[in-house]
Amino acid sequence: MDVRSARCQGRNCGRRGRSHGRSAPAPERSPVGRASIPPAGSLRHADGRAEHPGSGGGTNSVTLRRLGVIGTGLIGASIAGAARRSGARVQAFDLAPERLEIATARGMIDEARASLEDAVEAVDAVVLAMPIAAIIHSLPAVDTLAAPGSLIVDVGSVKRPVLESMEGLPGARRTVGGHPIAGRETGGPASADIDLFRDKPFVLVPTSRTSSTALAAARELAEMVGARPLVTDAELHDEVLARTSHLPQLLSTALGLTLEPGDGRLSGSGLHDMTRLASSDPEVWRDILIANDDRVSEALRRCLAHLNRLADAIERRAGEEIARILTEGKDRAAAERMESPA
Amino acid sequence: MDVRSARCQGRNCGRRGRSHGRSAPAPERSPVGRASIPPAGSLRHADGRAEHPGSGGGTNSVTLRRLGVIGTGLIGASIAGAARRSGARVQAFDLAPERLEIATARGMIDEARASLEDAVEAVDAVVLAMPIAAIIHSLPAVDTLAAPGSLIVDVGSVKRPVLESMEGLPGARRTVGGHPIAGRETGGPASADIDLFRDKPFVLVPTSRTSSTALAAARELAEMVGARPLVTDAELHDEVLARTSHLPQLLSTALGLTLEPGDGRLSGSGLHDMTRLASSDPEVWRDILIANDDRVSEALRRCLAHLNRLADAIERRAGEEIARILTEGKDRAAAERMESPA
Repeated sequence: MDVRSARCQGRNCGRRGRSHGRSAPAPERSPVGRASIPPAGSLRHADGRAEHPGSGGGTNSVTLRRLGVIGTGLIGASIAGAARRSGARVQAFDLAPERLEIATARGMIDEARASLEDAVEAVDAVVLAMPIAAIIHSLPAVDTLAAPGSLIVDVGSVKRPVLESMEGLPGARRTVGGHPIAGRETGGPASADIDLFRDKPFVLVPTSRTSSTALAAARELAEMVGARPLVTDAELHDEVLARTSHLPQLLSTALGLTLEPGDGRLSGSGLHDMTRLASSDPEVWRDILIANDDRVSEALRRCLAHLNRLADAIERRAGEEIARILTEGKDRAAAERMESPA
Repeated sequence: MDVRSARCQGRNCGRRGRSHGRSAPAPERSPVGRASIPPAGSLRHADGRAEHPGSGGGTNSVTLRRLGVIGTGLIGASIAGAARRSGARVQAFDLAPERLEIATARGMIDEARASLEDAVEAVDAVVLAMPIAAIIHSLPAVDTLAAPGSLIVDVGSVKRPVLESMEGLPGARRTVGGHPIAGRETGGPASADIDLFRDKPFVLVPTSRTSSTALAAARELAEMVGARPLVTDAELHDEVLARTSHLPQLLSTALGLTLEPGDGRLSGSGLHDMTRLASSDPEVWRDILIANDDRVSEALRRCLAHLNRLADAIERRAGEEIARILTEGKDRAAAERMESPA
């Protein structure tokens, strides 16, 4: 299959029954280029046949029988367990032996390996599930050590710096950036869940040199863990995630910081939902925020402008203006919740 | 029962097994006074006996057999339905006949009445479940029309302006401010739910003139709908709710406003939770924000300061500072989530 049909795995792809009568444009794959997120229902195979998530893409002959997972935190262990359920054999390595033990004890992996080199031996795909800095740091070694022909995919929450590293590797053709849009505020293999990615988007970002075989393999991996593959570029990914994931994290933290002792007793499900993200791992998030600093800063400054408008309107008791802002926010949020797979 | 024991209905009251060896202080009941939220587990009867939610307070002889509910939106209809389940007979009035029809059709009320006067006839308690401005506007008429000896309680989300009106009524002794801390983003009697208040706090705010009988009756009403009565003062209520309810609403709205078309497709449960509140009714929230403008403004300005600190740290790529702020937010949020009944 080619890159074009590999893009047809967006949410509800083809399922809303609309056909635009033309095939989708090829994605702009430069890490500084732009590609829009495929609109729901607008993408079809070149022959007009709609493609359904989980179909394996029809022409895709890649089969991932053996995976090497580096990093067995929440995401790595969940991917491993979900892939095992789909029939793959998973060998794994983690710098922290206790994480590897928990992942093994919970049946998320078949085999704990003693080193990165051992873990990538004779696999069809290497999944890099470490913090972003560690992913970038290990990419050259993984490219040197991994079996010829094996896919190399990461699961970092920011894609531009990872793609930049992938582009420069001798084995760039077999690398694909990845990001399963799922998680929870509690980390580690003890929180791993083989259903974590069920029906969630799994963003795939090909490098400028990624082969169509590698992209097809990455798509198979995403489907193997129950997710919906969605191809876009790193620039757009990081811009959108700054608004949909990184900004919500900051708002949740700031709300937590504003609370006073005892406040929780006079609270309901609204506060509960709004402070859930604040429980996430500060170290993981520090890295994400720094790796995506420009986009996060842009999103946060825009959000601050809206909050300042609200503060000014409230201080002036400007009822009509307050209602107008609330209505705009309601409409904007509703439109995106309609599109959300959550 | 006296006012003191009526305060013993906070969440987990007496259930954590700690006894301070002294009775709780009497609440400061002036609308400009201050009373702290009773700490969990710290309140007991004067005789040292722990009081459990739902016990009816032991000495409480009030029995609410017949209720008049004014306003059959989400909260009014849910209270009516929950009270019916507990054996009360509920008559109701709403300016919008269609809301009254839906509430009747859904079995939330026994009898739709044609006017405010009809609805408050011969009841043991009048529940004012309209927008705040309407509650304040109608209080003098309700006090004139309601059966002698009947409790008058409101369910508005801001308490200072309501209490101010109640204090000035000839029948102030029978008035109690109320606020069940529960709701959902969809309004109206079609969303009503007799379990909406189950184990949630129902804040009760006595006026400076409220009788102990009236407060006991209000507590009975709260228990009747499955909630946990919690007595505090209007000043503290409005200050805390600004942080736990009104501020989260503004953050959710601002997040919604920051989203771009298509963003929802690359989102997970984090964005979903964080934009839920933005779906709430803008008119209802305009009134709440204006009624509590000073406290909301204070909470929002404090939150903005935290967000600005985060923005600055991210722009400087100050990793340690970012991690420190995230950790502080995590700890603060965790402490209040521990206290939260949600």
